[in-house]
Amino acid sequence: MYRLLMMSLVASAIGGAAAADDLRDAALQTFKALPSTVPAVQGNPITAEKIDLGLALFFDPRLSASGVFSCYSCHNLTTGGDDNMETSVGHGWQKGPRNAPTALNAVLNEAQFWDGRADDLKAQAKGPIQAGVEMANTPDNVVVTLKSMPAYVDWFTAAFPDEADPVTFDNMAKAIEAFEATLLTPAPFDAWLNGDDAALSEDARAGLALFMDKGCSACHSGVNVGGHGYYPFGLIEKPGSEILPEGDKGRFAVTETADDEYVFRAAPLRNIALTAPYFHSGKVWDLPVAVEIMAESQLGEALKPEEVTQLVAFLDSLTGKMPEVALPVLPAETATTPRPTSAVVQ
Amino acid sequence: MYRLLMMSLVASAIGGAAAADDLRDAALQTFKALPSTVPAVQGNPITAEKIDLGLALFFDPRLSASGVFSCYSCHNLTTGGDDNMETSVGHGWQKGPRNAPTALNAVLNEAQFWDGRADDLKAQAKGPIQAGVEMANTPDNVVVTLKSMPAYVDWFTAAFPDEADPVTFDNMAKAIEAFEATLLTPAPFDAWLNGDDAALSEDARAGLALFMDKGCSACHSGVNVGGHGYYPFGLIEKPGSEILPEGDKGRFAVTETADDEYVFRAAPLRNIALTAPYFHSGKVWDLPVAVEIMAESQLGEALKPEEVTQLVAFLDSLTGKMPEVALPVLPAETATTPRPTSAVVQ
Repeated sequence: MYRLLMMSLVASAIGGAAAADDLRDAALQTFKALPSTVPAVQGNPITAEKIDLGLALFFDPRLSASGVFSCYSCHNLTTGGDDNMETSVGHGWQKGPRNAPTALNAVLNEAQFWDGRADDLKAQAKGPIQAGVEMANTPDNVVVTLKSMPAYVDWFTAAFPDEADPVTFDNMAKAIEAFEATLLTPAPFDAWLNGDDAALSEDARAGLALFMDKGCSACHSGVNVGGHGYYPFGLIEKPGSEILPEGDKGRFAVTETADDEYVFRAAPLRNIALTAPYFHSGKVWDLPVAVEIMAESQLGEALKPEEVTQLVAFLDSLTGKMPEVALPVLPAETATTPRPTSAVVQ
Repeated sequence: MYRLLMMSLVASAIGGAAAADDLRDAALQTFKALPSTVPAVQGNPITAEKIDLGLALFFDPRLSASGVFSCYSCHNLTTGGDDNMETSVGHGWQKGPRNAPTALNAVLNEAQFWDGRADDLKAQAKGPIQAGVEMANTPDNVVVTLKSMPAYVDWFTAAFPDEADPVTFDNMAKAIEAFEATLLTPAPFDAWLNGDDAALSEDARAGLALFMDKGCSACHSGVNVGGHGYYPFGLIEKPGSEILPEGDKGRFAVTETADDEYVFRAAPLRNIALTAPYFHSGKVWDLPVAVEIMAESQLGEALKPEEVTQLVAFLDSLTGKMPEVALPVLPAETATTPRPTSAVVQ
């Protein structure tokens, strides 16, 4: 049905309102418009106090051992919620193993990280803070740091009012999750899903039809156009080791199941035009090239140049309006705040 | 006269409105309240377009070779405009030679850097971008980077409308200076200078009197309570080499004059309570200890504990209201944007 639909669209260069409605009906079975309010998060009721605390924590470089890195360093909200590097540079100038995914709309992913090893953002947030190649801190040191600044104790108390000892590593992660839940980026595609015919260009609509017809949407679907489900990278044809390095077996490291070798979470595609370079290895900088590689490796298809153009036009329609973020004012260190250390522990 | 004034204040525990007016009159001869609007900058008329461009540039990590560091990295506007480290960590995890000064109110300093080697912020802004241990970039690569993104070309054109080739390294620096000119932090001390008696506590007023009477204000004066004039660190008694490392001869490196050995610009003291650690070496974390060291090394005085408390209360009154900064949205890289490199060139 999608192929028919696509052919009618491409061949007859859009058949008017009826065809547009058909395409929308098909799209609504596969995708979902972004919610217009902050979504509920399981096990973590969102409150204004929690969001404010999470904003402060997200920007606080004192969550890292060195004082150099905050969440914002690699999930830079000025540049699409990621860091635009192959893999992030962290503590001691070490390089992380995989490309940093965007924090934008990440609350809507069904699991976090390229291998889905965290169920949600409150689990995810604890990872980089402790990773030796990222922020290289420890939960104990984080809690001592936060407790050393009276304003943080007040903010945690306001965000977790029923708890006797609110300043905990768990609550830090919950507050960061609450802030990240506000990082939604409504895009032209959402406007179009919601009925605004003019929100997508003809190329973007043709690209959407191709996206569904060729089978891209078999993995990249739902509200984040991906971000759920695990698939082998190289389902049909394995990309070269420059793009799919042999040493990183993806979800295999989580499940230790042979079937999960080189299996990764299908990337969420919102704001993909802002978040080069691409793939878990971050080896591809050009979006049209990334689209061609996906078509070959996952679908066994060599795309025509026009098809690439249309698919990229559709992907461009996933670039959303950035959330307005006012820089927080963080409390000053006190005499008991642990001092930053740039030393690298081997 | 200041000593008399101070003694009357301290001994009689504030003598009412007349004494307050005397103290204010004396203070107004030495200090100046912060301007309430963005100050004019020589050779760089400030416009809204230039401020907006400068905001974007200030936050853009692509001004560094690695893509890791922006101006904001070391002049973090969430933590007092500096990075709260002894000396900054830069490209290749190298450590800078001196403590990063705050960018807040820096436009009002008469010269920039600890040794005053830059006359103004547009000269200063070019330094860290090129320093091998900081952002490790080159002017050419910066210009190629900026020109590769059409939005930046538009923004430079709007900010420098009369120029045929507006995207230049010089104009980048001017735009950053324009943004930084907005980073003013009005403090209780300003309110008090402007006539609000209640803005300073009794301790802060006593500390102010001490600050003038003991001679601190001989160097730390003017609108930024410092930030102009060069003085030997250890005028009376040289601090130990753990605080004044022998290898860093300060302004001597700029003037090559023997008299300038270990000479540094008197630090501007606005927001000093937020910008530990102290001194060009960043070796002292505690503000009361820093005050004691200054009194001993510059004035040959051992302060009484009560005097330290009062001086710190005065310094606390220099902590201002942080400017409201909304994160900019930066343009995405294009095919011609130079890629980040974390390689360290020796």
